[in-house]
Amino acid sequence: MEFSSKLLENAVNEVSQLPGIGKRTALRLVLHLLKQPKERTSHLSNALSNLREKVNYCKSCHNISDMEICEICSNPKRDKGIICVVEDIRDVMAIENTGQFQGLYHVLGGKISPMEGVGPQDLNITTLVNKVKEGKVKELIFALSSTMEGDTTNFYIYKQLEGLDIATSTIARGISVGDELEYADEVTLGRSILNRVPFERSIKAN
Amino acid sequence: MEFSSKLLENAVNEVSQLPGIGKRTALRLVLHLLKQPKERTSHLSNALSNLREKVNYCKSCHNISDMEICEICSNPKRDKGIICVVEDIRDVMAIENTGQFQGLYHVLGGKISPMEGVGPQDLNITTLVNKVKEGKVKELIFALSSTMEGDTTNFYIYKQLEGLDIATSTIARGISVGDELEYADEVTLGRSILNRVPFERSIKAN
Repeated sequence: MEFSSKLLENAVNEVSQLPGIGKRTALRLVLHLLKQPKERTSHLSNALSNLREKVNYCKSCHNISDMEICEICSNPKRDKGIICVVEDIRDVMAIENTGQFQGLYHVLGGKISPMEGVGPQDLNITTLVNKVKEGKVKELIFALSSTMEGDTTNFYIYKQLEGLDIATSTIARGISVGDELEYADEVTLGRSILNRVPFERSIKAN
Repeated sequence: MEFSSKLLENAVNEVSQLPGIGKRTALRLVLHLLKQPKERTSHLSNALSNLREKVNYCKSCHNISDMEICEICSNPKRDKGIICVVEDIRDVMAIENTGQFQGLYHVLGGKISPMEGVGPQDLNITTLVNKVKEGKVKELIFALSSTMEGDTTNFYIYKQLEGLDIATSTIARGISVGDELEYADEVTLGRSILNRVPFERSIKAN
């Protein structure tokens, strides 16, 4: 792509380094900003640099927060005995949206992935183990994605907790509500039969 | 979408105002920046605000340029007697990529579109007409998109040029090179028959 201006080329190059955005999309976005009032661009770039400079993570659960301890961790109504272990803050938002969980979270910040050079030391695992060692936590719910990396991470943490008095569980895998059985993949369908639920319990959940 | 931080919410809101980017994508992009070194974000936001603050348009053709007069307009090898009228700078880049055009461009900055509140006075039409009135231009090629708005804009400019000694043409519409006839739409196929080209000429173009 040949640019008529260095400034333009530079902006397009920077934007196209974002994941899922190619040069053409980047050019479209940048030209859009040029047609908008100058304030649009200054608001956008200020919001991004402000966030990056001042971002703060909750000291307890590592969720992004404007305070030392996030709103969820400092909420007296939440059950501090049960912790849901998730990969990143998008998972916290997704589970919060369900309104079904009243415990706390622990954001690992990723999954163990040797292919991408992410080892256990890159994740917030030590603080989780220390939290459990303090003895106030009764149950950990692993809510990582069910991929090779997710399973590895689950197992690694599980091993770190050996000998400690803690219940561990993983979220249920099964057929999505509203899905047709015939289109479900075999592994999911197989698991949903193995982990079947007493009928009375499934009625209560609805 | 509930955010755990005002800074994060602000950044996601700003990013999601870009065209084609929803809240979820914006959150993904912002979290990606948070995982990258701080310089990535500062380079990105600086590149955007630099471009927006210092952007300069060629005084002659209105293309984005770092100089008063852009490289194409100031190139002595280009034919100043023929001007290709385009909608925006992406069209200039696309035509330059073909290597088939040696004349100059004129960037209108949009199309006449009453629906979007864009009238002739919002486009760079007066400067084009003045250029033609100076008498050095022999031919205008209209290369706007063949939509209602593009056709309206073509016709408006054509009317403004009435009585002036200037040849006007539009780029050829027809079946794309490599396309199968059976999948072409009727209007395009019809036009490609009406505007058929002598066989000798089509051989030379290959």
